[in-house]
Amino acid sequence: MSSNEVAVVIGAGDATGGAIARRFAREGYTVCVTRRTAEALAPLTEAITADGGAANAFGCDARDEDAMTRLFDHIEQDIGPVAVVVFNIGANVRFPITETTARVYRKVWEMAAFAGFLAGREAARVMLPRQRGTIIFTGATASLRGASGFSAFAGAKFALRALAQSMARELGPQGIHVAHSIIDGAIDTDFIRNNFPDRYALKDQDGILNPDHIAEQYVQLHHQPRDAWTHELDLRPWMETF
Amino acid sequence: MSSNEVAVVIGAGDATGGAIARRFAREGYTVCVTRRTAEALAPLTEAITADGGAANAFGCDARDEDAMTRLFDHIEQDIGPVAVVVFNIGANVRFPITETTARVYRKVWEMAAFAGFLAGREAARVMLPRQRGTIIFTGATASLRGASGFSAFAGAKFALRALAQSMARELGPQGIHVAHSIIDGAIDTDFIRNNFPDRYALKDQDGILNPDHIAEQYVQLHHQPRDAWTHELDLRPWMETF
Amino acid sequence: MSSNEVAVVIGAGDATGGAIARRFAREGYTVCVTRRTAEALAPLTEAITADGGAANAFGCDARDEDAMTRLFDHIEQDIGPVAVVVFNIGANVRFPITETTARVYRKVWEMAAFAGFLAGREAARVMLPRQRGTIIFTGATASLRGASGFSAFAGAKFALRALAQSMARELGPQGIHVAHSIIDGAIDTDFIRNNFPDRYALKDQDGILNPDHIAEQYVQLHHQPRDAWTHELDLRPWMETF
Amino acid sequence: MSSNEVAVVIGAGDATGGAIARRFAREGYTVCVTRRTAEALAPLTEAITADGGAANAFGCDARDEDAMTRLFDHIEQDIGPVAVVVFNIGANVRFPITETTARVYRKVWEMAAFAGFLAGREAARVMLPRQRGTIIFTGATASLRGASGFSAFAGAKFALRALAQSMARELGPQGIHVAHSIIDGAIDTDFIRNNFPDRYALKDQDGILNPDHIAEQYVQLHHQPRDAWTHELDLRPWMETF
Repeated sequence: MSSNEVAVVIGAGDATGGAIARRFAREGYTVCVTRRTAEALAPLTEAITADGGAANAFGCDARDEDAMTRLFDHIEQDIGPVAVVVFNIGANVRFPITETTARVYRKVWEMAAFAGFLAGREAARVMLPRQRGTIIFTGATASLRGASGFSAFAGAKFALRALAQSMARELGPQGIHVAHSIIDGAIDTDFIRNNFPDRYALKDQDGILNPDHIAEQYVQLHHQPRDAWTHELDLRPWMETF
Repeated sequence: MSSNEVAVVIGAGDATGGAIARRFAREGYTVCVTRRTAEALAPLTEAITADGGAANAFGCDARDEDAMTRLFDHIEQDIGPVAVVVFNIGANVRFPITETTARVYRKVWEMAAFAGFLAGREAARVMLPRQRGTIIFTGATASLRGASGFSAFAGAKFALRALAQSMARELGPQGIHVAHSIIDGAIDTDFIRNNFPDRYALKDQDGILNPDHIAEQYVQLHHQPRDAWTHELDLRPWMETF
Repeated sequence: MSSNEVAVVIGAGDATGGAIARRFAREGYTVCVTRRTAEALAPLTEAITADGGAANAFGCDARDEDAMTRLFDHIEQDIGPVAVVVFNIGANVRFPITETTARVYRKVWEMAAFAGFLAGREAARVMLPRQRGTIIFTGATASLRGASGFSAFAGAKFALRALAQSMARELGPQGIHVAHSIIDGAIDTDFIRNNFPDRYALKDQDGILNPDHIAEQYVQLHHQPRDAWTHELDLRPWMETF
Repeated sequence: MSSNEVAVVIGAGDATGGAIARRFAREGYTVCVTRRTAEALAPLTEAITADGGAANAFGCDARDEDAMTRLFDHIEQDIGPVAVVVFNIGANVRFPITETTARVYRKVWEMAAFAGFLAGREAARVMLPRQRGTIIFTGATASLRGASGFSAFAGAKFALRALAQSMARELGPQGIHVAHSIIDGAIDTDFIRNNFPDRYALKDQDGILNPDHIAEQYVQLHHQPRDAWTHELDLRPWMETF
């Protein structure tokens, strides 16, 4: 049922990445999902397989240039042509500026921006000869404005948005659709449940984002005809202040 | 086949408004379409009816407060509850600042901003008791930046965006989805065919927007679940410089 | 001491407009100040004269195209060449969307946007033959984002910003400096003292803007050499949340 | 003539940094200037001294956390309290995305963003106990939008702007003025003269920015009273397209 066309989700370790992978699998794509260690992806790939889909898990440090190049080469050679790449790694931290170590500042950037650059570049590399494909970067509120305590996180997210804009303007006229989403609100993830219980309680009234609904939008972005592409998509709960 | 729920398209005289009306009719809504004179809408309503849909045409000066209030009252009382309102009136003109008359500056604002305010306010009035509904304003490149010669048009389009933002922030927490689209490119309309033939020639390679694809996005905006609403949607051809 | 070069302040009825007029008078310009009725400007022109400056007061409805044209013609013919024009009329109102009448929506736009268009156009008309001059539009927080209750005010302020951008891009290469300021905070005016006493109390700790300091910035904008022009200047108190 | 208050310019190796240092020295500050090797700064410090000012040169890799911490400690202990810090390191490169190596992407970020973070953090550290000071980050056109070929440079510049915004919002209410400039145009530097001769030829008509004029604006930012602070300042030549 699934074609050999591939949807790659870099950073499939959280609920959002998992939902995106499942949704593209249901759309008929062979999905390739990554996180630091492949083992932790077993529940996801099993769920996709049980649902009739095709899934491959890869343990891959997305900040490692060689590892990313090998990953894309392997997928293209052994699995199928990459049609969609979703970059979904975040690194939400909050520290006063004087308590932000160089180590934290660098690590947040490596995870949320540098890894996005590697994913985007490798995606472009394999897609350009075919002059088509979709690349989606997951952004956040911090992609649009810096806020107290967010020097590191906003820095990385701003950089990712700059990447998305630069790539969209370079690759659009070559047939490749590059989009950036602004997820402006809490998502129904373990992270929110454990760390922001008051926020999580809004789930009953649809006050936090359902990962399946984010995934649905990503599939729709991919299916947009090329005369009407969206390059930046904001998604937020109806009751979110913005 | 069509429900009694109503989709209103204010400014259905061009290809975009017509496509939006046809698309919501196919979705099962009874559509109410307006332009200055109702007669000119006959081909549109006939096409919708022939396609099995339900359509009503209204001649209505969208800049007339009383006329707009009467229109919404009439629809609610005699046709059905308004679920969707799309405001689609533009007024693209370009003049050097010293050749922009007060008459032109005012008229462009009345058509593209003031009429949008009336449509949005009336939509809010009938939707608020039900705490649901979707209101979509059609924007343009000039919604985002002023450019030489566009004092009047950008002024009106900026004002319309301010309206959309203000209403989204006020009405979102009351269950009403207010969205603003940025149509950044030429649309396949008579206006472009007649005035910008070089631009129009790009149609063969999908270089101008297909109104049906804009309409599809508007329907998708309306169907977004309330935990994941988009408030601003850009749409542009793949080869468009931006 | 004052040259015959003229600085025009449209909307000199509040503390900000008055401070700007006094500051340009001290800079040596003959100032021409307007508000609805000239009589109310007597204290301002008397203060300027007592300070050794030159000032002329004009009662002028800034929304009246003919009146504005006559005003600029009169100044150019009888007083001196216009070097600076500051548009300083606001119209801050706040209403829920369903309580915003067409009359209010229109009036706010006429005062804060349409009058700005007339002032800007007339300024351009008299400056273009000389290929120099400075035009400054006073904006507000609402110039940048719509907020609940601000459909009318943000609509007008967005339109004014569109005007400033369009004119800057058209007139800059012709030697005319068009700038837009974002006054993001309360100003030390009677309006704030009377209506927002808690806010006003922050004056002791410099929590509200001193009109003289705004005026100083406007003079500095005018003096910028043409290789380094600022087109948008934000000004806010140190303790302001933004 | 110079006070013991210090103005630090991180990245004083180009014409802009040099002009900023000279201007703050003339304002009476003891200036501390850095670039990779101190020797290359000799002409600058000699010029400042000859002009009656006080200057200290430091060879310092601004990407080295320990080196930056030691630098600020040394200045505070042995020279004087830091009143102003200007971060002025750029790294303008342009490559198609598939030709952008990880090494380049990382290096550009380290120079233009990570070093800015270190400078800003160290500035905050020494200024916070005094609850005053000014921190200025030099931005560029690429701070506002990504463009084809600018994934690396725009990424770094976006990150620097995120830093400036985050720090401004955190430190403003603690008395520290954080500002970000957008230098939107070519500057009169050796880099432009050598690489963009056509651009450089516009110097005769003020079509490129004079570093002294940028420096003047920076001094004015520093002198703004705290009730009227600018957080983002754009500077561009009158004939620049934007």
